[in-house]
Amino acid sequence: MIGIILEEENMKRVLTSEINKHIGEEILLEGWIHKLRKLGGISFIVLRDRAGLAQAVIDGAKENDKLKELTTETVVKITGKVVKEERAPHGAELHDAKIEILSPVKEDIPIAINKKEMNINLDTLLDNRPITLRNPKQRAIFRVQREVLDAFRSFFEEHDFTEVNTPKIVCSGAETGGAEMFEVKYFKKKALLAQSPQLYKQIMAGVYERVFETAYVYRAEPHATSRHINEYMSLDMEMAFIDSWMDLIDIHQDLIKYMVEWLEKHSKNDFELLGATIPKYVKIPQMKLKEAQEILEKEFGEKCVGEPDLEPKHERQICEYAAKKYGSDFVFITHYPSKKRPFYTMDDPESPGETLSFDALFRGVEVTTGGQRLHLYEDYQEKMKERKMTEEGFEDYLSIFKYGMPPHGGFCLGLERLTEKFLGLSNIREASLFPRDINRLRP
Amino acid sequence: MIGIILEEENMKRVLTSEINKHIGEEILLEGWIHKLRKLGGISFIVLRDRAGLAQAVIDGAKENDKLKELTTETVVKITGKVVKEERAPHGAELHDAKIEILSPVKEDIPIAINKKEMNINLDTLLDNRPITLRNPKQRAIFRVQREVLDAFRSFFEEHDFTEVNTPKIVCSGAETGGAEMFEVKYFKKKALLAQSPQLYKQIMAGVYERVFETAYVYRAEPHATSRHINEYMSLDMEMAFIDSWMDLIDIHQDLIKYMVEWLEKHSKNDFELLGATIPKYVKIPQMKLKEAQEILEKEFGEKCVGEPDLEPKHERQICEYAAKKYGSDFVFITHYPSKKRPFYTMDDPESPGETLSFDALFRGVEVTTGGQRLHLYEDYQEKMKERKMTEEGFEDYLSIFKYGMPPHGGFCLGLERLTEKFLGLSNIREASLFPRDINRLRP
Repeated sequence: MIGIILEEENMKRVLTSEINKHIGEEILLEGWIHKLRKLGGISFIVLRDRAGLAQAVIDGAKENDKLKELTTETVVKITGKVVKEERAPHGAELHDAKIEILSPVKEDIPIAINKKEMNINLDTLLDNRPITLRNPKQRAIFRVQREVLDAFRSFFEEHDFTEVNTPKIVCSGAETGGAEMFEVKYFKKKALLAQSPQLYKQIMAGVYERVFETAYVYRAEPHATSRHINEYMSLDMEMAFIDSWMDLIDIHQDLIKYMVEWLEKHSKNDFELLGATIPKYVKIPQMKLKEAQEILEKEFGEKCVGEPDLEPKHERQICEYAAKKYGSDFVFITHYPSKKRPFYTMDDPESPGETLSFDALFRGVEVTTGGQRLHLYEDYQEKMKERKMTEEGFEDYLSIFKYGMPPHGGFCLGLERLTEKFLGLSNIREASLFPRDINRLRP
Repeated sequence: MIGIILEEENMKRVLTSEINKHIGEEILLEGWIHKLRKLGGISFIVLRDRAGLAQAVIDGAKENDKLKELTTETVVKITGKVVKEERAPHGAELHDAKIEILSPVKEDIPIAINKKEMNINLDTLLDNRPITLRNPKQRAIFRVQREVLDAFRSFFEEHDFTEVNTPKIVCSGAETGGAEMFEVKYFKKKALLAQSPQLYKQIMAGVYERVFETAYVYRAEPHATSRHINEYMSLDMEMAFIDSWMDLIDIHQDLIKYMVEWLEKHSKNDFELLGATIPKYVKIPQMKLKEAQEILEKEFGEKCVGEPDLEPKHERQICEYAAKKYGSDFVFITHYPSKKRPFYTMDDPESPGETLSFDALFRGVEVTTGGQRLHLYEDYQEKMKERKMTEEGFEDYLSIFKYGMPPHGGFCLGLERLTEKFLGLSNIREASLFPRDINRLRP
């Protein structure tokens, strides 16, 4: 078979998305047979490559004979002449196409990944990730995710933040002192998988003032909800020389604006394919936890005033309220009680028992946690004493506060939750290529 | 003290690197007291911020009184008038400066981080990372590292690669089938920390054709050498629809060219500060392992022909040779023997026992490993049988070869080694913010 198109072997490959720029030319496509339809002496192939789909028309007995043995997912080279065809993808198709097998299929693929909707349940989707990811909608999800990640990095680079990579094998926990962390057998020692770069990003704020990190973190929480996975991408930032915690809210506002504009520019087609809507940016409304609880009571009849946190249901309701009242898909909830926030959180000097901290909720779920940190050594000593924490395992971290730490704070976003909510998916697992949860350790 | 400069409170902060744009103006600087010199009634402060250093002159008894209690690393605000001064950093300094303490120092800093050379040994450097990183040269190392990372990502984005994030908690090993991998207690199961994204990046090449990932990987190798750390940043790429393994060599060539130009553009000052040289790009020479061994024998009297790999000493020698003969700081060594390469490596059909694989050496050390992979299911079955491997734990991975995988290959670079060699450091640990090795689990 190779001999047949040998003469075209030096042809440069064209991507499916580019075929309409080659009307009238003989071109070479490479990809997977996405669909194959035989109608007597004529066959139609829809070819899939990284850029999308394109149609090729195979005419004549000789070429059609070759198709007998072929099934979808066979990897092929197709040469042919580009002809305008309004009904085909990209408004053109290949005529008089010739086909060469690059890599055969061993078994028929068990899932119809070439359908717009695969109509399989979540477990089947995830169990078969290596092939279900080939579905065009699945591919689109993670292209959007990559753009969200890119937007985050690009925003902070433009704002003079330095990217850092801090260790994930650690010996102490940032928030829980080791609870709900995975244990690693580290040679003859016991280590833990980092649940957050918190302590390290504060250290690095003492070095570069402004830092960000995009990396996996690990939580050994035995949840089995649609909101939790145990390995997730944490988008972290930390920033020194803030005048107040409001600097953090302001830069978060700007980040969302930037992200939304970025997605408008880079991901419009993928959002369309997925039937999702890029949120319109409006100034994000902001309310204290207490105020949110009063709204929940008044508007939704929820008796929650005085509770230390919002329940998942309350997060959905307050987002509903913010969308209706302010036209915003995001809302900041601030001033969480001191006892619900980690020891490094700064209390509000004007409101004892409350902290200078915030969450951002997005379309019904918390996507960001942040706040101002303590920066004086004495304040850490006092707070840790109050909580009956020892300094053991925190010595390196605490040392920075002895040698001059400016006022600072930061926040972190969960990339998978963000992607899930941008795209209106129904489970965080759909926004992780190979999710890890209490029951799932493969693929 | 706060009252004194209250009137300037709304002044916008200027970075030290920008002061010469404000000659004659009253400005506000914020940062750490890097150096403090008192000469009778006049004092000189060198202030350090994220952008660099600037000098301020403090005159008058009242302001100088404040300095009595101050030591280096105190975090301060300084206001003053910018005056041209050729001998000061950035050609200007602040006169008539007024100072306000933002955050005090609790103890004198135990290491003189304000010296050009700290003159401490590696263990002291690393044990005290949270503060030694504040040293200007240390900061420069990781600014360069971030640019290397940025260049890698930017290059592959420009070449239509999709960034992916694959799991680091896995149940099987890519290369060793579990040997030399860290064990994780994953709820009630046993899991491993990924030593490479190899299997996942091949899966993803079946989805997006071209993918890259920049993430930590973990090796439980009990080495204690200057070349190994146990948690490192792996810069991975994988690319489908290659015509031959030479496509990988070609794109690696282009990557190095791009990286060198990127560093010329973004990191010139940091290289200067560190006394390091950005390599000049020349076409990278390429030789088979056998040829390299013949050169080693002929030029250096090393009897190594027939050995399955190069020893560290040989890597240094062959780099020396390539630098002298071709003027190149990089050299490709190709065609490693099949038995030394992982099971997924493609053998050279024209040279049995040898593989279509390569390493890139850079200034004496291996920084890249890559090659073409098998893409036919039968070939995997055969190779795994040959090696007496079972398919257990590899089922998800192997499934992709049943359903059409194009010819593909890829490579990975170690970010810390690359940084180390770009900057002429003497130990890989100097190129990791918080290195992990057999003895080191903190800070």
